[in-house]
Amino acid sequence: MTAYAALSAHFSRLSALSNAIGTLHWDHAAVMPKGAAEKRGESLALLNVLRHDMLTDARVGDWLDAADADNGLGAWERANLREIRRVYTVETAIPADLVAASTRATSACEMAWRDARAASDFKGLLPRLQEVLELQREIGRAKGEKLGLSPYDALLNDYEPGGRSAAIDALFDDLADFLPGFTEEAMAAQARRPALPALEGPFPVETQKALGLKMMAALGFDFDRGRLDVSTHPFCGGSDDDVRITTRYDEADFTSSLMGVLHETGHALYEQGRPRAFMGQPVGEARGMSVHESQSLLIEMQACRSREFLAYAAPVMREAFGGAGPAWEADSMWRRYTRVAPGFIRVDADEVTYPAHVILRYRLEKALIADAMPLAELPAAWAEGMQALLGITPPDDRRGCLQDVHWPSGGWGYFPTYTLGAMTAAQLFDAAVRADADIPAGIARGDFQPLLGWLRANVHGKGSRLSTDELLTEATGRPLDAAVFKTHLARRYLDKA
Amino acid sequence: MTAYAALSAHFSRLSALSNAIGTLHWDHAAVMPKGAAEKRGESLALLNVLRHDMLTDARVGDWLDAADADNGLGAWERANLREIRRVYTVETAIPADLVAASTRATSACEMAWRDARAASDFKGLLPRLQEVLELQREIGRAKGEKLGLSPYDALLNDYEPGGRSAAIDALFDDLADFLPGFTEEAMAAQARRPALPALEGPFPVETQKALGLKMMAALGFDFDRGRLDVSTHPFCGGSDDDVRITTRYDEADFTSSLMGVLHETGHALYEQGRPRAFMGQPVGEARGMSVHESQSLLIEMQACRSREFLAYAAPVMREAFGGAGPAWEADSMWRRYTRVAPGFIRVDADEVTYPAHVILRYRLEKALIADAMPLAELPAAWAEGMQALLGITPPDDRRGCLQDVHWPSGGWGYFPTYTLGAMTAAQLFDAAVRADADIPAGIARGDFQPLLGWLRANVHGKGSRLSTDELLTEATGRPLDAAVFKTHLARRYLDKA
Repeated sequence: MTAYAALSAHFSRLSALSNAIGTLHWDHAAVMPKGAAEKRGESLALLNVLRHDMLTDARVGDWLDAADADNGLGAWERANLREIRRVYTVETAIPADLVAASTRATSACEMAWRDARAASDFKGLLPRLQEVLELQREIGRAKGEKLGLSPYDALLNDYEPGGRSAAIDALFDDLADFLPGFTEEAMAAQARRPALPALEGPFPVETQKALGLKMMAALGFDFDRGRLDVSTHPFCGGSDDDVRITTRYDEADFTSSLMGVLHETGHALYEQGRPRAFMGQPVGEARGMSVHESQSLLIEMQACRSREFLAYAAPVMREAFGGAGPAWEADSMWRRYTRVAPGFIRVDADEVTYPAHVILRYRLEKALIADAMPLAELPAAWAEGMQALLGITPPDDRRGCLQDVHWPSGGWGYFPTYTLGAMTAAQLFDAAVRADADIPAGIARGDFQPLLGWLRANVHGKGSRLSTDELLTEATGRPLDAAVFKTHLARRYLDKA
Repeated sequence: MTAYAALSAHFSRLSALSNAIGTLHWDHAAVMPKGAAEKRGESLALLNVLRHDMLTDARVGDWLDAADADNGLGAWERANLREIRRVYTVETAIPADLVAASTRATSACEMAWRDARAASDFKGLLPRLQEVLELQREIGRAKGEKLGLSPYDALLNDYEPGGRSAAIDALFDDLADFLPGFTEEAMAAQARRPALPALEGPFPVETQKALGLKMMAALGFDFDRGRLDVSTHPFCGGSDDDVRITTRYDEADFTSSLMGVLHETGHALYEQGRPRAFMGQPVGEARGMSVHESQSLLIEMQACRSREFLAYAAPVMREAFGGAGPAWEADSMWRRYTRVAPGFIRVDADEVTYPAHVILRYRLEKALIADAMPLAELPAAWAEGMQALLGITPPDDRRGCLQDVHWPSGGWGYFPTYTLGAMTAAQLFDAAVRADADIPAGIARGDFQPLLGWLRANVHGKGSRLSTDELLTEATGRPLDAAVFKTHLARRYLDKA
């Protein structure tokens, strides 16, 4: 057996373990009774240790060195070696006691955060969050030393391989200049329109579910290799051949759950479209979190909040719920799904104001990891940033710096991928529509095959063969910039062509 | 750390792995989309290898020897050592290549069996089944050498620790003499009664599910540590703090699904009642398959097909489905749930004829493992046995020796535990009722707390501290015999006091 074949077999075994972990995570969120939490924690901790042991197996380094010298490998295999080396480097960078300390600290902090958020008690959370921050900084330093990166860029690199804060700074500074004025303009345009008639419920859960399944099928979701279920926090998870998305239902309002299903379907289509020949290998994985978020936002924001989609979907919704009247017209649905309203909560934000939430968090976490700001000053810095970016100040920390689980749970360096994803989605969708005029026409008739075909060929099927920059350049002609995203916003919210 | 503490920590880790495996098995049967089958097989195979590696870790033998010499251990800890040694001895008895060969052969045979059963094609299955049989014989020989047992007893011992075919022969020969005549008498008594009015459906799945959940709650099922779901083949599975039972619904007939739920709830109550202080340790596991089956049959056959239970349950059923008329009366329900009708299919058999199915399979598998009969003669021997025990001859192998998955899937030595369980259930329930007259009275008012209390104290809470014989002797005053079971049958089916 060649070194490459040994490496590939090792990572196939590893993927069998990762698939088990993914299924157990889904189970935890979707169906597990609460009394099983402690034992499930023990199972997941054990499987993660076994996974770490396999990833850092000393033979991996030897196989990598031997395989690098193998001249018989093709482009995919070379890319696989690059991805394996990336994962191996990061996984071996952190001493076991630091991993264990971080796991303990984030677990305790996430538990404490639930209460602290409910009580809006930042001071109470501060000592635990400080511990998490210091351990993240230490992890960033350890990885950064191996990778030649700053601690923050090293953390970012786990979610966004190749992502660098210098490039993000430029993109986000541009957006931060543009958005406050644009939001005012969009709000003014919105205010000039007549009042939006309300949808009258209730909307039974079973009907909502049936409608969601129908839309998933239209989008091309493969139900032989996936499911739709319910969980408190919607997500896309599961395993290689079993992609499971979740939603939550509100019988007073179906619109948010339905759009959530479409969003998660975007993630799921990416997962289901990864290259089968490299399933189980690192090169067969999704490229990174910004490309992943681009796929959910391309479906949700670019395709499904468009006039084309809502012209098709409004009658389907009306028929499903037996609705009648102007509230169910396509124009009303479009206005409902494109309303702009600055608010305190990121997950409730609209397309226009969402980047402000992300830019705020990105700037703050970068400063905190760089030790350029004391953690105790976070609430004040948050309030100041919200005022500058969105013109509002949260009345308490519950609706401010305590709202997200990311920092308590150790997810530092993740936030920027949301807005990078939104910009990437705009740039990809624009290229897709330029390449095939039947894409918007198809969406208007509920036919997503033209769009899905383009995504399969240009994004999903590439796995991690290319870097994010290369992928975007091959698909759109250039690396990411803010131009198409801004044009998209102007066209949608200011009626500019 | 003492050797015992090290051993205990090792088996706690092992239980975290077993819990993961249990949850993935549930997922496979209850919710997994079909396209995930191959990857799931890979995940389970890997986890089972990891489990085997942990079980046969060389340190386990050393720890066992050192802990045996530790005088500071209590009765539970001593029993835990005995159970660990039992598992370790069996797991280390089989060479890895024999395990792998058997896994491959049973997997292929089980797949082939699905088609062979549908086509009633025993000859087509014969080569693969022969391979499975020979490997089972080899496994039985390897284990038997270590345990000082015959190959069949060594296989039996995996499901029924301490079980020996000499003792089972005596019990089953007694029953085999008794049952044919008794079945005729019971059928004659049944024929003298007036016609049983039919229940008119349909019975909506949602109503059936709600009724099942209500009955589970009445029986004492803990929904914080368990669930009810749907699968093709009902089972009780899951993990230590998360006991999941399944059923399947038929809108034309709710009675069989409901009784199935009660049966699985009996298994689940055992699992949920195991000693918490030894959860994760071998001594905290259920005692064996005959005791496990006794718990499902005690609930189903002894408690829930009784006149007392049906006096309580018939009005609850009638109200749930909005039924009316004599078909819904308690006496009709009791007659429906105690109908005797010899048939070809084991899983459809009633309480009186079920043992005949089991005795037939037990005698045949014992002869096959002992190489006392060629496998090619199985269909003829089956037909002969059915005629002798039940007075009927199956028209084809689909309704004969191909009906069960046990042999193709490598479950040799399992069958006798069904009828040992039925006899154990009768003996335990009789002792429970003698000990507390409020047990039948409670059942008549839908209150299972008195019964559950007795089971917790005398069976569930004992885990594997005692042998099956000891457990039964402590709970009922003597080891298992057929007397109480026969008395129970006579009382129920011949109206003899």
